[in-house]
Amino acid sequence: MISEKMIGYVQNSSAIRAMFEEGKRLAGIYGAENVYDFSLGNPNVAAPEGVNKAIIEIINEENQTAVHGYMNNSGYEDVREAIAQSINKKFGTAFGLRNIIMTVGAAGGLNVIFKTLLNPGDEVVAFAPYFGEYRSYVANYDGNLVVVSPDTKTFQPNLAEFEEKITAKTKAVIVNSPNNPTGVVYSEETIKKLAEIMNRKQQEFGTDIYLISDEPYRELAYDGVEIPYLTKYYDNTIVGYSYSKSLSLPGERIGYLVIPDEVKDSEMVLAGANVANRILGYVNAPSLFQKVIAKCLDEKVDVAYYDRNRELLYNSMTEFGFACIKPEGAFYLFVKSPVENEKEFCEAAKKHNILIVPGSSFACPGFVRIAYCVSYETIQNSLPGFKALADEFVKR
Amino acid sequence: MISEKMIGYVQNSSAIRAMFEEGKRLAGIYGAENVYDFSLGNPNVAAPEGVNKAIIEIINEENQTAVHGYMNNSGYEDVREAIAQSINKKFGTAFGLRNIIMTVGAAGGLNVIFKTLLNPGDEVVAFAPYFGEYRSYVANYDGNLVVVSPDTKTFQPNLAEFEEKITAKTKAVIVNSPNNPTGVVYSEETIKKLAEIMNRKQQEFGTDIYLISDEPYRELAYDGVEIPYLTKYYDNTIVGYSYSKSLSLPGERIGYLVIPDEVKDSEMVLAGANVANRILGYVNAPSLFQKVIAKCLDEKVDVAYYDRNRELLYNSMTEFGFACIKPEGAFYLFVKSPVENEKEFCEAAKKHNILIVPGSSFACPGFVRIAYCVSYETIQNSLPGFKALADEFVKR
Repeated sequence: MISEKMIGYVQNSSAIRAMFEEGKRLAGIYGAENVYDFSLGNPNVAAPEGVNKAIIEIINEENQTAVHGYMNNSGYEDVREAIAQSINKKFGTAFGLRNIIMTVGAAGGLNVIFKTLLNPGDEVVAFAPYFGEYRSYVANYDGNLVVVSPDTKTFQPNLAEFEEKITAKTKAVIVNSPNNPTGVVYSEETIKKLAEIMNRKQQEFGTDIYLISDEPYRELAYDGVEIPYLTKYYDNTIVGYSYSKSLSLPGERIGYLVIPDEVKDSEMVLAGANVANRILGYVNAPSLFQKVIAKCLDEKVDVAYYDRNRELLYNSMTEFGFACIKPEGAFYLFVKSPVENEKEFCEAAKKHNILIVPGSSFACPGFVRIAYCVSYETIQNSLPGFKALADEFVKR
Repeated sequence: MISEKMIGYVQNSSAIRAMFEEGKRLAGIYGAENVYDFSLGNPNVAAPEGVNKAIIEIINEENQTAVHGYMNNSGYEDVREAIAQSINKKFGTAFGLRNIIMTVGAAGGLNVIFKTLLNPGDEVVAFAPYFGEYRSYVANYDGNLVVVSPDTKTFQPNLAEFEEKITAKTKAVIVNSPNNPTGVVYSEETIKKLAEIMNRKQQEFGTDIYLISDEPYRELAYDGVEIPYLTKYYDNTIVGYSYSKSLSLPGERIGYLVIPDEVKDSEMVLAGANVANRILGYVNAPSLFQKVIAKCLDEKVDVAYYDRNRELLYNSMTEFGFACIKPEGAFYLFVKSPVENEKEFCEAAKKHNILIVPGSSFACPGFVRIAYCVSYETIQNSLPGFKALADEFVKR
């Protein structure tokens, strides 16, 4: 039989992923065009043209044993240097290749850093609502996830409660902005206060508390909103990045960690992350795509496409009477469920072939997440269904 | 500071990987052509032409959001079906897509299956010499690696000791044939005896003991040697495969697990492996390369290239007076160190710009591993160095 922990995981397997599978099942029955699958953050926008151009260039021009071969577990040095310089240019930082570790997406990066940092029983603080996988990633290394309850008005982090929840066992704090599932961007003011609290608590407890910034949605921001680069606000900051959304490459599993020199014991953290990349079985980030993204550092997906979706969906949903805040980033709309148990609402939506994810998957029951990384037509065609749900559920 | 476990890992970091880095350093000083780096299993033979042809076809012809997108955590269904059919054709098995889980190389696959199976304290039996990373992979899930000492005459598994080392806590046994580091192929006779012992011990203890067959070198076999397909000999067998060596794609991180229906609790094992793939942060095997290998199932690297290397290296080394058995598979020669402490011998080799790995990295001190997945010229040019080492060390 499988392990006891794993039995639990199988039984409580990801609701998001289950929905994704359900979507494929329904598409088989009703036709893909008649199923409105808002379940998964699987971009519908193709990768920028530069990506395929880069693939073909590399295949045609570079030494093939090197392209597909092993390299340092942290990644190709030229790729890491190019990424460091690109970050420096954008944010005025001073990173070198030594600060960059290529990872199997952001999920790989987060596992690498938790494996590196956590002793059993260490606490990692997350702000609800948060990406549900954080719980598994922390549990993988016998850490405990400590959850700060959501501020359901603004969905900015609840800093008063945060301060209370930091203890001598707090090893890390994880933030995700632009946020999945709310689309909220943490303001500079929020970040400054967060940093001030963390610095104060480090002193109080005489501990190191690492701030882990999970940033797969950094490039997806609307209306010119600024997204602070967190290493500039708090020394002990580690950044996890992914090209899954910015270049629409979620299946290719390519991202990186930034571990600045300012991080406490940075040399050990870097060496540990290099080892963790290896022994967790990633070995290295996929080699061809390391080279691809190095050629595409100035490219990004068509954000206007998502913006158009955002406007249509947000305007329609509010017009129908649903309550939600307008996302400033990412590609999710987080809507207040018109009934207390939002799972009931998700089930009702399914009857209209609409697939959305309950907020309890993000430790925020009473809300639902609608991933609008779909075609504009999917949103248009889903609107009668949402209208019918509003007529059925929304109290006026 | 990083976790206590990780401090230990950093301090005892992989000797093989350290050697790989040393090789690059020496190449910078003396020129790559003057450094004979036999340290890492990083194929020097380019991927078959079909690989790059497949990449370009997929990029030019398929839907790009699908090519680079998410899919089921176990992989694309058509890819898994194609792999199942390819195995069935070769080995007369009856697998379907449900039995195949695409993984981030064999290292990813092994981590997935250990995460799925192991409770803390569970034992995994390995036969020395074994790939040193097994120890980390098992420790990742708080399992204990139990080592059967080597039969340094034949390097077939020591089955008498094996039988003694199986206990009520034995959850899995891992074998690797063709073997890294010896190049030995476990004979059908060995496999039958192994299966008989395991069946008997399952009955004796009333437990399930999974046999994990780690097979990245399956396609690299010489002189027409047969490599038994283990699912046919023992019901509770799980196969881990990788295209790292068979298609020379080690950096791309692509492989799969086979979990047959005959495996005890196979549905739970399959469901668990699907979840483990997700929560360990792999999420899925790299998407483009899933599609690439599905188009290359009948291809393999030029085994004759390695065979030529094998003949030159084996014949030269034995002629110089070194003791070793002739490898039947993989691309490693495992040579008895002419001095008791083989690390001393490795250091001496370094003075001739020859990089080889101590057998203690494989729980088999007193031997050294020479990875001959290099160019023929590298072997030719290294021979005066090996000759000088023989003159210095080998007692005649």
